[in-house]
Amino acid sequence: MRLLEEKIEKDGEIIGGCVLKVDSFLNHQLDINLFNEMGKEFKRLFEKENITKIFTIETSGIAIASLAALHFGVPVLFAKKHAGSNMDANCYEASVYSYTKNRSYTIRTSKRFLSKDDRVLIIDDFLASGSAVKGLIQIVRDAGAHVAGVGIAIEKGFESGRKAVEDLGIRVESLAIIDSMGENSIKFR
Amino acid sequence: MRLLEEKIEKDGEIIGGCVLKVDSFLNHQLDINLFNEMGKEFKRLFEKENITKIFTIETSGIAIASLAALHFGVPVLFAKKHAGSNMDANCYEASVYSYTKNRSYTIRTSKRFLSKDDRVLIIDDFLASGSAVKGLIQIVRDAGAHVAGVGIAIEKGFESGRKAVEDLGIRVESLAIIDSMGENSIKFR
Repeated sequence: MRLLEEKIEKDGEIIGGCVLKVDSFLNHQLDINLFNEMGKEFKRLFEKENITKIFTIETSGIAIASLAALHFGVPVLFAKKHAGSNMDANCYEASVYSYTKNRSYTIRTSKRFLSKDDRVLIIDDFLASGSAVKGLIQIVRDAGAHVAGVGIAIEKGFESGRKAVEDLGIRVESLAIIDSMGENSIKFR
Repeated sequence: MRLLEEKIEKDGEIIGGCVLKVDSFLNHQLDINLFNEMGKEFKRLFEKENITKIFTIETSGIAIASLAALHFGVPVLFAKKHAGSNMDANCYEASVYSYTKNRSYTIRTSKRFLSKDDRVLIIDDFLASGSAVKGLIQIVRDAGAHVAGVGIAIEKGFESGRKAVEDLGIRVESLAIIDSMGENSIKFR
């Protein structure tokens, strides 16, 4: 999606040659008009899938998933990293490994909000190793629901996430795929 | 806002007579069509304020703020409770006391995304003691920006949050105000 690539080129910062910082528009300050266009594109890509629910993970996925959900006319469900005192005890759980934090954590989703009849679109801001998305897929499958696809804002095409998800038989659509990054340059597929 | 009150009556759960659980539509599963209507109502209420930015706090405020921002045509900024490795060192900070968790925590916002010219609408899902909203107000004021108002989805009208915010000279608009709750009943203002 050219609009997103242009935004990354203009406002993304590459730190140490390997970390792409996009907090001015994607995960601290949020460019909602851009997210709305991204939502339209996800709708176009997955239009035929009869999506019933969009599933994401806190925190950065929530706003992107919410604007997409507006175009699909379905609810969002997000997996929690930080379970509050109000959280249902009756949860699906999965373990996710964070390479930036160098540790595993548990994500949780109440069993009440996923059913066998759901056709779920998983949406997240980044795809790198695929660990978060694999955790979300595991939860959807534990619920007996169908993963209709995975929609990603920015994919690090030089990491293994896409292969890990496609090996599970699931379609991945990324709005921007980065093939390589250097100190001052970024190359899209 | 009658639509939100009806949703609370239909799908909210009152636990122990004092906790309102709304995770089926407001803070775990998210009713995006409802949020879109709430966003329109926030726009109507604050239309004359020339809002330049919507400011909220992770996690539950983000989706509500995002749908509102779509109607204002402005970005969302959210204060972080959990600073990742990518977070700017140069931050505004505030301390927030959580009554549900019975402890204080620090919220952070990069200094790059608030300026003296900003006219900020603060949006959050709940107003009870007002501690989170007061932390957000402090950050906006530390940046020299103007707090144009506070928009809340559900206010617990029997707690002190509204008074705390109004005493700072700030307008509060809540889409549903609960005057009292019992085991099986809820009374709106």
